[in-house]
This record gives sequence, structure tokens and C-alpha cells, in this order.
Amino acid sequence: MEVGSSSPEKGPLFARGFWWLKAMIVGVVQKIIKLGQQDPRRVFHSFKVAIALTLVSLTYYITPLYDRFESAGMWAVLTVVVVFEYTVGATLGKGLNRGIATLLAGALAVGAHHLASLCGEKGKPIILGLSTFLAAATSTFSRFFPRIKQRYDYGAMIFILTFSLVSVSGYREDKIIEIAYERLTTIITAGVACVILSIFIFPVWAGEDLHNMVAHNLEMIASFLEGFGGEYFRSPEEGDNQVISEGKKPFLKEYRSVLNSKATEQSLANFASWEPGHGCFKFRHPWKQYLQIGTLNRQCAYLVEALNCCINSEIQVPYEFREKIHQTCTNMSIESGNALKELALAIKEMRQPCLADPPVESAKAAASDLKTILETAIIANSDLLTIMPAATVASLLVEIVHCTEKIAESVHELANLAHFKKIDPTLKLEKPSLLLMGTANRLSKAESHQHVVITIPNLPATTIESAYVAP
Amino acid sequence: MEVGSSSPEKGPLFARGFWWLKAMIVGVVQKIIKLGQQDPRRVFHSFKVAIALTLVSLTYYITPLYDRFESAGMWAVLTVVVVFEYTVGATLGKGLNRGIATLLAGALAVGAHHLASLCGEKGKPIILGLSTFLAAATSTFSRFFPRIKQRYDYGAMIFILTFSLVSVSGYREDKIIEIAYERLTTIITAGVACVILSIFIFPVWAGEDLHNMVAHNLEMIASFLEGFGGEYFRSPEEGDNQVISEGKKPFLKEYRSVLNSKATEQSLANFASWEPGHGCFKFRHPWKQYLQIGTLNRQCAYLVEALNCCINSEIQVPYEFREKIHQTCTNMSIESGNALKELALAIKEMRQPCLADPPVESAKAAASDLKTILETAIIANSDLLTIMPAATVASLLVEIVHCTEKIAESVHELANLAHFKKIDPTLKLEKPSLLLMGTANRLSKAESHQHVVITIPNLPATTIESAYVAP
Repeated sequence: MEVGSSSPEKGPLFARGFWWLKAMIVGVVQKIIKLGQQDPRRVFHSFKVAIALTLVSLTYYITPLYDRFESAGMWAVLTVVVVFEYTVGATLGKGLNRGIATLLAGALAVGAHHLASLCGEKGKPIILGLSTFLAAATSTFSRFFPRIKQRYDYGAMIFILTFSLVSVSGYREDKIIEIAYERLTTIITAGVACVILSIFIFPVWAGEDLHNMVAHNLEMIASFLEGFGGEYFRSPEEGDNQVISEGKKPFLKEYRSVLNSKATEQSLANFASWEPGHGCFKFRHPWKQYLQIGTLNRQCAYLVEALNCCINSEIQVPYEFREKIHQTCTNMSIESGNALKELALAIKEMRQPCLADPPVESAKAAASDLKTILETAIIANSDLLTIMPAATVASLLVEIVHCTEKIAESVHELANLAHFKKIDPTLKLEKPSLLLMGTANRLSKAESHQHVVITIPNLPATTIESAYVAP
Repeated sequence: MEVGSSSPEKGPLFARGFWWLKAMIVGVVQKIIKLGQQDPRRVFHSFKVAIALTLVSLTYYITPLYDRFESAGMWAVLTVVVVFEYTVGATLGKGLNRGIATLLAGALAVGAHHLASLCGEKGKPIILGLSTFLAAATSTFSRFFPRIKQRYDYGAMIFILTFSLVSVSGYREDKIIEIAYERLTTIITAGVACVILSIFIFPVWAGEDLHNMVAHNLEMIASFLEGFGGEYFRSPEEGDNQVISEGKKPFLKEYRSVLNSKATEQSLANFASWEPGHGCFKFRHPWKQYLQIGTLNRQCAYLVEALNCCINSEIQVPYEFREKIHQTCTNMSIESGNALKELALAIKEMRQPCLADPPVESAKAAASDLKTILETAIIANSDLLTIMPAATVASLLVEIVHCTEKIAESVHELANLAHFKKIDPTLKLEKPSLLLMGTANRLSKAESHQHVVITIPNLPATTIESAYVAP
């Protein structure tokens, strides 16, 4: 794709125009390929919608079906376009909203129509107009209630639509029950077709996405914490630690997506609550617990954000003080990171997060070690100002350890609520908290920031490495 | 509403049922009143939608209009229900999306229909089916592009809908141009009616909401900062400072809504970009600059969140050290708060934020004072551990001062881009940074946390109070 190199800036108008067109098309195609590669389920979804629409169009092509449904086929097309969403939960939620709202509004509209008929020819349009006004005003207002907005917004909209259409068209056509019945059956048929396609052909489950997203967000905070100790306490000979380029260390900024994850998590949890049991998730899986873990993880992300401000502090902390707190701070950071990574893994594999308990305990032990160190620290030849940035880092790390503990509790609660599988308790003994036994050095190579090399006196390096390396 | 007091728990079934029904209705009515009082524009919006729908229904009631539009009246109802949104920007955005997508899809569908006619009776359904499949698949996929998702999502949906409906119904009715024309005029008429009602009767401008929201968010962080110094450095005799009840001090938790404000700000900015000039806002007002201010304000909120963790620290900081940093820390906090409040006021009143410069400078001066204090501080009779929480607070406040400075720059940029009105430069001299000249004492009464009493040697108290009291 050597588009940039052959720009005919001084060629004839036609050649330039052609070149620009070609460059644009190539650009668009590249973007499409990238978007499809990021998540191939998007491509499948597009084909699923196209298949559903083409199937529904059959009501027009095949005469017997056409005679049965008449113009109601249009409603089938409309239902497919509007109801078929990316995730199963969203499709089911919209489908149920549409079905129930249509039924309810249809029944009420028939009632209003009957009432209007009792009031004579002159009263009829007035009663119908008034009832439309009332129905529209109340259901529009109801959409401002947060709970209705969250789960039934689409239903409220369809309610107004159906009520207006049925009550109003009935005024002309005098076969209102037939219209309501016909429309409802069409909508239900199309809705059911969407749901079946959505569930049985390459389904995208909102619940699964939420599950993976929460685990992934824990991992991102974990990556930062695992890398942070090594970055911040690098000894001067290892390189300039004043300004750390974020470009070379992706884990230093990747965690930022966690800060604004609330909206996505909430909508996924909302969709997930519409979904039936699937895969490892039963119906009524405790989706709300994921939101709680997400909230605690964001709390942790706020502290990490404050920590990140400290990395590039201009004040040079004296070497001796750094050395005093280096090991315990690095341990707090790495152990919290390990705990979060283990919790993420436990969520992903849907097993009890017992393996996260030793690193949580180690992190807490490191935090209390820090207290002892600081209690006995005598600051020689240095003023408070120079110590402050390191003291701040230490304080924030203590808070992060607290936060990690809360996250661990919350994941334990999830594991109990969702009956995650128990693991062999002997496994616990095989994976002790290694970092307190030995020394941890992070490789500072930019490419391999996910690997931790741990040197422990009496154990072969390979077994230990595999115990703590991220999968 | 003494519902709770007269619960007939042991009465007959009918009485109990009646009581519950009454309690439920009273509850719902109370909620409705509360929701309406919070923002009366919601009530007006509901009535506007109802009026629009009733007006559109006239196409059915009044015979001449009905003869003109025939069943297309249904499309008018559909357009009103779907297009009429809460804000002018959202309504305009949806209306334009709907109009343009309908036009484009209609033209393409007519083209596809013409092409299909050339292929004979047998080829026609195949060509039409194929073109529907292709159009549906590509436009569904296009909705995954973030830029299209943000602004043209609804347009893409309407494109599929119209394309399928026109190309498919044309197969039966053989008057495709007429259908497309009729549908387009109906949709345009209904859309224009929505837009007119939306703009001219109690309009809700997304731009104005964004403007107010950004200013309000700055104020919330300001309230926290103004209150923080007084809370954290309260002397022991003033009361127990270990655990501060958030219930009594709303400013200690109100700022939390800022943390998750990104999604709302972005959608408001998106809607605002569709809006024409209105009130003080010209067309092409720099809405994106508000997003930048919002982002910086959230940065500040993350630091505030970390600061809030420190308030309830268990470690008791020795009195002498607290006293050393008390005044400068309080000054940093209050001056940053003042600067943010002044910036919020400048945004609200759409004037140059010059009055925020003195408090920003004072906050910076206080930060550099702190450096001097800490450089010369000798820590007698106390270990590092006890000093750490206060040192952390001081560090975070320094970062908050940096952040405030960035926010001030960003607001200055907004003021230049949007040509905010200049203010009388002499005003600047009337409002010097008072806190560096005298002593500031915050009233600790829970109810009056927004009032600052400032005692300055040679000025009457009233003039000064009015200079810094939040409006």
C-alpha cells in the first residue's frame, strides 16, 4: 500500500483526483479490515442482520405469505431493523419491550376506541385526540424515571407509537381488532426470528462480555502495579528515571480506560439481566456483583492515577531513603498486582479466588513492614521536601493495598454467589507468596513488560517463573 | 401523607389491599412531583411531544389532509415518536439523520429497483434480495465505526429500514417513485414540525446544558477544596477529626458525580454540535473545548478522591508538624477552590476568567511556600510514619494546584475561542488574593459550609466576605 510515496502533486487534475479517490478507498478498506480483525463478531453480526432482513423480505416475494400478511410485512421489516441488536441481551430486552408494549398499547387503544364510539360521531375525534394526548404525555414523562429509562425506555416509546397508530388508524378503517391482532402477530414473528438468530448463530452474550471486561480491567490495573515498583525505584545507573516515556511502556497508560468504564459496565449488566442461562452462566447470575467489583476497581484506578502523577515528580529523592523503602514498596506494588491478576484469572476461569489470598496477605504484610521501617527511620542529611514524593508513593500504595483487599473480598462474594468451582486446596501450598522469599527484578525491556523474573535461593527459576507469569 | 402511621396490618383483606394501593399511588405521585420539580423542563417536554402527536393525528381526522397523505400519515406519527428528543440538538440530529438517510436510501432503492427490472421476472427478486442483503450488511457494519456510531448511528439504521421497505414494497406496487416521494415529504413535514416545536416552545438546548454542567462540575470540586483545609486541619479541641461524617458535610461526597461525568459530557457535546446559534452561543461555538475542561476537571477529581482517602487516616499526625504545614496547605486548598469557583463563575457569566488568575497565583505561591517550609523543617520527637499522611495530603494538594493551573489555562482558551466578554481591568485590583493578606477561618457549622469568613486587618469585614462568598 505505497500510497503515500506516489502522490502526483503536480500531475493533471484527473490523475490527482483518481489518486485521491484510490487513497481514500484504500484507507477505508484498511479501517474496515482493522475493525473486523479487532472483533470478528462484528462481521458475523452484520451478516446475521442481513440474513434476517432478507428472510423477512420473503413475506413479499413469496405470494402465499404475502396474501396472509398483506402490508403487515412492513412491520416485520421494521421490527428486524429496530430490534436486532449486537448482544443477545439487548435483542431480547428490545424484543420483549416491543412485544409487551405493543400488546398493552394495542389493548388500551382498542379500549379508547370503544369508549370513543359510545360518544357519537362528534365526540369520537375529541375522545381519541384526548386519549392520544394523555398517553403520549404520560409515557414520555415516564421515560425520565431512571429505572424506566434504564430498562424500559424502548418499551415506553413503542407504547406511544402503537397507541397513536392503532387508535388513530382505527378511526378510518373500522376493523381495529384485526389491525391490532395482525400487527402483533407480525411483530412477534419477526421478534422471535431475531432472537433465534441472535441466540443460535454466533451469539454475542452481554453477560460474557461483562464477565471478561471486569476481569480485563482488573488485569490492566495489575499490569500497572506490577510494573510500577520497577519503574519508580529504578536505580540511577539503570537510566534516567525522571521522565518515563509512556509510549515505550504501554502499561503506564493502558489502565486509563478503566477510569471511564462505568457506563459500559452498567449497560452490559443491564443487557445481561435479560439473557437466559448460557455457557457457564446460569439464569440470574449475580451480574450486579460485577458492578460492585468494577466500582472498587475504579477506586483503585483513581489511586493509580494519583500515583502516576508522582512518577514524573521533579524532586530527586535521596538515595538512602529510597533504598530504605524500595523493597517494601516494590513488594506492596507487585503483590497487589499479583493479587489482582490472580483475581482476574479466577474470574476468567470461574473458580474460587483462593490463590489470590497469599499475595493479598503478602501485600498487607509489606504494608505493615513499611510502617515498622518508617517508625524507626532516621532521616540523615536530608530535608522533608526531598522525602515527600516517596512518602506520597508509599501512602498511596498502602491505600491501594487496602483497595486490593476490598476487591478480593468482593470477588470472593461473587465466587460464592455464582457458585464458582472449588479448587484443590493443595494448590495453595504450591504457590506461596514468592516475592517475600526472594528478590524480584522486573525486566526493563519495553517489549517484555509482562514477564517477571524472580530469583529465589533454593528453587529452580523456571518453576517459579511459571507460577507468577501472566498467562 | 401519613401513610406509614395508619397501616392496617391486621385488618380485613380488602382494607389492606386498599391501603397498599393507596400507599403505592401516593408514592408514585410523590415521585412524579419530585421528578417534575427537579427539572420542570421535563414536564414541558412531555406536553410538547403530546401536542406534536395530536397535531400529526389531525392528518387522519381532517378529511382533506387525509386524502392528500393517505396512509403516509402513519409515517408522520412514526417520525414524531422517534425523532422528538429532549434537547434541540438531539432532535435536530435525529431529524437530519432521518431526512438524509431516507433520501439516500430511497434513491438507491429506486436504482436497485430499476436494475432489477432489467433482469426480467426471474432475476428481479434475486437482484432485489441481494441488494437488500448487501445494504443491510454494510450499513450494520458501518455502525461499529466510532465516528459513525457517535453521530450517524440513527441515520445508518434508517438507511437500512428505508432501503428494505422501498425496494421491497416497490416489487408489489409498481409505483415506487411515488412511494419514495410521498414518504419523504411526510417525514420531512413531521420532522420540521418536531424541530419547530422543539426550538420555539420552551427549548432545551444541549449546548446550554453542557455549558452549565461543566461550570457546575468545577464548582463541586471547588466546594470540596474550600471545605477540605478546614476539615483536615481542625484543631483537636474543635472536635474529633478522625472520622468525618459525610452525611453532615455534603461537599465531601458531592464531587463524586464528577468522576463519571465523561459519557454525559460527550453526548451533550455531540448534540450541541447539531444546534444552531442560540442565546449567547453562536453557531460553531467551541463545544470541544468544554470536553477538554471536563477532562482536566476529572483529573482533579481523581486527585480529590485520593485526598479523601487521607481524611480518615488512622495515624495521628503530631501537632507541631500539622501546625507547620497547616496554613500553607489550607491556603493551597482554599485558593485552588476559589480559582475553580471563579472559573466556573466566569464560564457561567461568559466573561474572561481574569479574576481567577490571582487565586491561581496565590495557590502557586502557597505551594512554593510549602517547599520552603519543608526544606527547613526539622522533625523533632516524631517519626516518619506519623508525618506521612500529612505529607501525602501536602503532595496531593501540590498536584491539585498544578491541575487547577491547567484548568485555568483551558478556560482562558475557551474564553478566547468563544469571544467571552472582557471585564473591567480595575475590577482585578479590587479583588486581590485576600487569603495571603490575612487569615482565613472556615465556619465549621455543617449548614453553612459555603460561607468563608475572612479577617483582614485594614478592611471592613463585609466587603471582603462578599468578595469570596459563593453566589
